[in-house]
This record gives sequence, C-alpha cells and structure tokens, in this order.
Amino acid sequence: MAQLLPSALVTAIDELGRLPGVGVRTAERYAYFLLRADSRVGEKLADAVSNLKTNVKNCPVTFALIDADEDVSELYSDPSRDKQMVAVVEEPLDIIALERTGQFNGTYHVLGGAISPIDGVGPEQLHIPELIERLTKDNVQEVIIATNASVEGESTALFLQRHIKDAGIEIKLTRLARGIPVGVDLEYAGQITLTHALEGRRAF
Amino acid sequence: MAQLLPSALVTAIDELGRLPGVGVRTAERYAYFLLRADSRVGEKLADAVSNLKTNVKNCPVTFALIDADEDVSELYSDPSRDKQMVAVVEEPLDIIALERTGQFNGTYHVLGGAISPIDGVGPEQLHIPELIERLTKDNVQEVIIATNASVEGESTALFLQRHIKDAGIEIKLTRLARGIPVGVDLEYAGQITLTHALEGRRAF
Repeated sequence: MAQLLPSALVTAIDELGRLPGVGVRTAERYAYFLLRADSRVGEKLADAVSNLKTNVKNCPVTFALIDADEDVSELYSDPSRDKQMVAVVEEPLDIIALERTGQFNGTYHVLGGAISPIDGVGPEQLHIPELIERLTKDNVQEVIIATNASVEGESTALFLQRHIKDAGIEIKLTRLARGIPVGVDLEYAGQITLTHALEGRRAF
Repeated sequence: MAQLLPSALVTAIDELGRLPGVGVRTAERYAYFLLRADSRVGEKLADAVSNLKTNVKNCPVTFALIDADEDVSELYSDPSRDKQMVAVVEEPLDIIALERTGQFNGTYHVLGGAISPIDGVGPEQLHIPELIERLTKDNVQEVIIATNASVEGESTALFLQRHIKDAGIEIKLTRLARGIPVGVDLEYAGQITLTHALEGRRAF
C-alpha cells in the first residue's frame, strides 16, 4: 500500500498506532484529523509529546509524578497534609482518582506497578523498600493499601501486609472497602463483588 | 488540580485530548503510556506529527493525498489505470477503502467533503469544477459516485448528478449499490438499508 498514501502520513499512522488501544482505523482518523487541522494543533501536540519525558520526573520520596525542577511532590511537602497517614497506590494516576474525592488528607506512596509473575514483575521491582523507610522516618500511624481490585492488586496488598508485619513494624494497616459501586444494580454486580459486599456489611 | 500533575503532563493530556473522540481519561492513558515508554517512542511520534502537514499535499488533479515532492497522484499517473473511469469520493481515505477491494482500476477524484448546509459546506467548497474539467479533458466514459451513505453523501450525489447533466455532458453516471452488508442478519439491518436492498434486488 506504500504508493497509496504519502509516506509522512503512513509514518504518522504507524506512530499514532503505538498508543495503547489504538488500531489502524483510529490511527488513520487521528492522522487525518491532524492533517486537516490548523498546523498549530500538530505543532503543539508534537511539542507536548517531546517535552513530556524531559520535564516530568518521579518524586524521590513518594514516586508521584512531579515537574523536573521540583524537589518533592507538593502532596508530600504541603505542611497541611498528614504525613503519618500513607495511601499506597500502584500508579501515579491513581493519586488523581483519590484526590478527586477530596476525602483524603494524608500522603501517597506509588509502588510503580503491582506484583505480576506473568509480566515478570516481582516485589523487588516495586518501591517497597522506600515505603518501609518512610514508615519509621515519618512515624507513620496508618497505611491504607489502595491497590487495584485485580488479581495483581490483591496479591500486592497481601504481600505488603506480610512484608510490613515481617519487618516488625507495628502499624495500622487498612484497605479500601470492596463492595457494590454506586449506581450499579445488584443483579449486575459480579459474584465476587457481592461476596465482598456481604462480608463487609455494616450496621445502620 | 494544577498541583496534582506536573505541568508537562497536563499539557500533553490537553493536546492529546484534541484528537477526535479522545476524552480526558483516554488522553491520560496515552500521556502516561508515553511517559513510561522508551523515549524514542515519544520522539518518533513527535517527529511524525510535526512532519505530517509539511510533507503531505493534495494532488492537483485528483486531490488525493500525495508526498509533497510528488507532482501527481500515482493512482492517476500510473498508465495501467483507466483514466476514462473516475470514482468520486468525499475524503482521501475513502480511496484506501476502495483500493483494498482490489476491484477498481479506474482513477479517483476527491471532493474534499460533502454538501452539508449545517456545517456551512456548499458545493462551491468542493472540488467539483476540477471534476467537470477532467470529464472532458480525459474523455471520461463513466463516473462512479462513491459518496458516503449519509444524508450529506446522498445530497452530494444528487447534486453532482444534476450538475453534470446541466453541464450538458453525456456520460455514464453510476452509484455504489446500497444493500445489506455482508455478515449482517436481516433483523439487524436498518429499515432504509432494507428498502435499498429490496429496490436493488437482482435476478439469480
């Protein structure tokens, strides 16, 4: 098909097609949109993409994403945040989800993934030693394990629980409640979700 | 939320979110993927996007997309293609769809859209004069109107039919068949599609 499309368009379709979940048809649509759009749209996108990795780094304490010229995450350095309470999440974007609730005033710790033998991710690839270090250094009182409700997230949560106990650290360890999501009918909630909802039932 | 995410990430999410059909969550996923991927992935994407508009132009005869350093579309200049048969399409990517069938050996003419009063697109914005010119210049015998099966595509087809007749050009004018798409059950085919399928029924 080389002759059918100009090579710059083929290249753009190929590169856009590397984005997660983007097939050929979607990549074609994106490329064609950029071709028709004002040239500033493409320029700004190209700049944003090429600046992304250079201008973003991980916070050395919490591993949240921060500006390359910042020292520590503002969610950690902010004196109004409770450093004795740490929510442990898998990925930096999970922080946004929790912050959107407006209900958490502690700090975060990003593991950088979840334990997944299939993907070759073991505990040694996660930021667990740095978490253990924080527990004593910041005199942490409670760790909320906020990993995903997936097999990998559950394994990671169980590993962390055991690991912290084995390290001889006396601390309150909690997990996010599992149950029926708001707006979902009982009949559509999965069996495991319902089991969690029954186990976690609360008195009125 | 400015403090939650590094500004380079926010910018990337904003710019990726301008792509058609991409919401905030998808843009976040794309940006986060680029952040984690090898830096060459982002660099190649940025290059591809910024080279796109500069290295692609429209063929002055068929208005297909061609390399900026080409003169005319290869689908037109190729001597094995039948210049006396012209398929008229709305957009350059429609050519790819027709070429994939491997069943068409004529040439193409891209209108550059379809007549749509709501979007402010009238016939004067389409490459219709250039089509009329080709009809006599290339001694065209048949024009296949291959516009989309949408209201705009239908209006454009009817307009072209009348316009070519009014210009006093005696020519075979055909349209793509409307009917039941392969693999679709009768019960799922829409009412209008079924009407077309009945009207266009053929003897065994």
